[in-house]
Amino acid sequence: MNGAESLLTTLLNNEVEVCFTNPGTSEMHFVAALDEVDGMRCVLCLFEGVLSAAADGYARMARKPASTLLHLGPGLGNALANTHNAKKGNVPMVNIVGDHATYHLQYNAPLTSDIEAIAAPVSHWVHTSTASGAIGRDAAEAVRQAAGHRVATLMLPADVSWGDNPNGAEAAVGPLPAATVPQSRIDQAVEKLQSGASCMLMIGGVEVSRERGLALSRIGKACGAQVSSDTFPVRIARGEGSAVLGRLPYLAELAIDSIKDVEHLILIGALPPVSFFAYPNVPSEIAAEGCDVLQLAEPGEDIDQLLESLLSALDAQAVEPDVQALDLPPLCSGALDVNAAAQAIAHFLPQDAILVDEANTSSTFTSAYTTSARAHDQLCLTGGAIGWGLPAAVGAAIACPQRKVVALEADGSAMYTLQALWTMAREDLDITVVIFNNRKYSILELEFGRTGARGGTPGPKAASTLSIGNPDLDFVALAQGMGVSATRATTAEEFNTQFEAAVNSRGPRLIDAIVPTVF
Amino acid sequence: MNGAESLLTTLLNNEVEVCFTNPGTSEMHFVAALDEVDGMRCVLCLFEGVLSAAADGYARMARKPASTLLHLGPGLGNALANTHNAKKGNVPMVNIVGDHATYHLQYNAPLTSDIEAIAAPVSHWVHTSTASGAIGRDAAEAVRQAAGHRVATLMLPADVSWGDNPNGAEAAVGPLPAATVPQSRIDQAVEKLQSGASCMLMIGGVEVSRERGLALSRIGKACGAQVSSDTFPVRIARGEGSAVLGRLPYLAELAIDSIKDVEHLILIGALPPVSFFAYPNVPSEIAAEGCDVLQLAEPGEDIDQLLESLLSALDAQAVEPDVQALDLPPLCSGALDVNAAAQAIAHFLPQDAILVDEANTSSTFTSAYTTSARAHDQLCLTGGAIGWGLPAAVGAAIACPQRKVVALEADGSAMYTLQALWTMAREDLDITVVIFNNRKYSILELEFGRTGARGGTPGPKAASTLSIGNPDLDFVALAQGMGVSATRATTAEEFNTQFEAAVNSRGPRLIDAIVPTVF
Repeated sequence: MNGAESLLTTLLNNEVEVCFTNPGTSEMHFVAALDEVDGMRCVLCLFEGVLSAAADGYARMARKPASTLLHLGPGLGNALANTHNAKKGNVPMVNIVGDHATYHLQYNAPLTSDIEAIAAPVSHWVHTSTASGAIGRDAAEAVRQAAGHRVATLMLPADVSWGDNPNGAEAAVGPLPAATVPQSRIDQAVEKLQSGASCMLMIGGVEVSRERGLALSRIGKACGAQVSSDTFPVRIARGEGSAVLGRLPYLAELAIDSIKDVEHLILIGALPPVSFFAYPNVPSEIAAEGCDVLQLAEPGEDIDQLLESLLSALDAQAVEPDVQALDLPPLCSGALDVNAAAQAIAHFLPQDAILVDEANTSSTFTSAYTTSARAHDQLCLTGGAIGWGLPAAVGAAIACPQRKVVALEADGSAMYTLQALWTMAREDLDITVVIFNNRKYSILELEFGRTGARGGTPGPKAASTLSIGNPDLDFVALAQGMGVSATRATTAEEFNTQFEAAVNSRGPRLIDAIVPTVF
Repeated sequence: MNGAESLLTTLLNNEVEVCFTNPGTSEMHFVAALDEVDGMRCVLCLFEGVLSAAADGYARMARKPASTLLHLGPGLGNALANTHNAKKGNVPMVNIVGDHATYHLQYNAPLTSDIEAIAAPVSHWVHTSTASGAIGRDAAEAVRQAAGHRVATLMLPADVSWGDNPNGAEAAVGPLPAATVPQSRIDQAVEKLQSGASCMLMIGGVEVSRERGLALSRIGKACGAQVSSDTFPVRIARGEGSAVLGRLPYLAELAIDSIKDVEHLILIGALPPVSFFAYPNVPSEIAAEGCDVLQLAEPGEDIDQLLESLLSALDAQAVEPDVQALDLPPLCSGALDVNAAAQAIAHFLPQDAILVDEANTSSTFTSAYTTSARAHDQLCLTGGAIGWGLPAAVGAAIACPQRKVVALEADGSAMYTLQALWTMAREDLDITVVIFNNRKYSILELEFGRTGARGGTPGPKAASTLSIGNPDLDFVALAQGMGVSATRATTAEEFNTQFEAAVNSRGPRLIDAIVPTVF
């Protein structure tokens, strides 16, 4: 077998079964190997920013990495923003980046670049395979690294791909076992939780499954501590039957206020909370100055075992957790706004839906109403690089073909990776997309004020830069141009009817929801 | 004035008058300054891959850099592929990349990344401004660096932007003077050219203006040398009245054959020619083994002075250059194919048009026919990273509002940065876009065969990966969705009528040309 076949076989032996790709000439032997080695689902994307977020969404829902196949430095560059998001969310990913043949690099052909240098800032692990005989071992190591909630990027020179590999493929290596949280840290946490001081347990940077949420709720109730997720959960179980958890607000001013009385902040996976951006005269750190912050667990550590230890140490196993009851909002009528759309979304959201949330300012309403909707998982943007939502929905739908995916998407963010719609159509994915089309970078209007620039009021040139009307984007036409059925809603009644129809049919649908801005 | 105002003023003082942007929160003070400092044309793009190629296209036509404004590491990542293209083409560019406030970086907020590391592989010069008082000087240095045919990337932390700058703005610093080509190299070249051996002068990596082309033709005729451009000229004057120059073919096999008898290859700006990709059993180097290669001039050296020196040394000033005569092909009828479209394009191409060429396989025909069209400039993809053409047309149109821009674009490449259409509509740019819609990555079908993978014949999974039909892309709908008038052509007659109408009216138009593949 050649290097490419060894690579593909090794990935499959290690349960990497999906490859999101946009290949080029240097990857043709990998592409050829797809027909020689059985079992890899290869999903073509029209732009690399689509495939990296698709791999992210897939991994969050499949709880194992997908692979990507990228074309040289520029292909990796196109994938960089969404790989950044995956890295910040500790989402496993195995990137395969084709390169020129090893002997060809010295000639500085037009597509030559320092791929390792481009990969390093967005990867936990970077390696260039330099021999066909080594590619199986290298690929197995990439998967092993990725399985520890990490982004692994492996460069595949063309001659490594096409050369004969006498060593064949590697067998399954199994993931690195998650490190146990040291008992000393658990003891510290227990001491704080039992101290009578005001405590908050905050989970983040890892999946908050239903079980984890319920365990947290029990622990919190047992010792009177608040329990919360971070601002942008990687994946969180919500709706009926999930634990009642707080969530740290996005706006630094509100976040600071929300935890100003917390004396002990105990972090499970989450990083110490900080302002998303810096603003003149707003502190960077969210926790109050005297607050004691304990990093109880890192994202790669064994979170489930930790929660068991806390349940046991605090004698909390039998405590009744606070559980979310079903409470569906009524449907609205009249003019469409984000509030009316949010009520309909919460009203009709199907059981076990996957809610991919990149609605930015519009999320304020949708997140509030869906808290008490039917049980679902929500995925959020973890690294702040917009253009993640639509392709993340692609990946989630491929990981969970039996579940409805609902992608809530801001108009501005949608335009970064709109090519995801084409893959939704091509793969006939069961996704309902709602575009909140307010014709603004609404978040930036809000942020302009918060930064205090020009007294908080944009002049005409600045205002023009924050507006994406003129011309208005017609998402119905854009979706249809990529083979996705689409409708436009300008009244609440239209939105209600269209959303109900979309979630009750299979396949990709898009609703262009014309709404005023929230702020 | 604050740092942002100092920066903007300094850019304007140094004749950087256009800023292609997609800003975020950390850039709000820069955005605010647009209304405080008069004179910067700010062009909003919906995706950073659009704005970097727009800056490239602008600089090629304006012969001076534009600035970009990018949002942190992911924004720069999105711009990376087209910045790579600019770097490979030695096109001046001043990138301003916003970053978190200097004091905020330590907290590792979600959008924190190593921006300098991301910038380095695609920049000639990288610098982070760390104080408001230094930003004027840093900006002037960035422009000075860029003016030397270089990509300069300057990081602008938010607090440097909003902080008071007691030093104000910098005055014009003027570009670094182009280095003179050493006389010893000129003497070597003249000796070779007069040796009676088979010589070729190849120009590349710099603009081939009409004057430069004619000078080269005179020099070649004076001493019997072949004269040629490289494969993908940065900018080249073509059509009626331009010099007759050869062009190195793209396919390595053809390129090798085309210069197999050349004994002395003398390079002006161009790099030693190499195969675009590596292929099993094809040499990387294009020049024959015994060929003597002289790097006569680097792209940053004074090419015009060099050509004067050669003209003088070879007594070639009075030699009549080989000049292209006007020869317009007739119009075709019947089924539309690339040949028929190419004849219509050459037939109707307006005087002084700017032909932005990213048609890939379809370029074979369009380039052939437009050789004898009315005088025009052609811009080509210099770094191999597709998704350059449509936004490069945006930049060219902004640089030259009196000239018609014709963008010839492959369907696959168009989908990388299709958001460029929206900026065309917003700015009412005079661009005619032709999409060669063959529903394939046709170049990859060709390349699959050339790599010899799987005997050169894709299996069904590979074939699916090379096809972008299913669903077919409807570029009429996609263009209309972004406010650009569009029509579809399926016959030669339809194409002829639509192209003639488009080039004879002002404003953006798109033609979705449904064509079979060329190969």
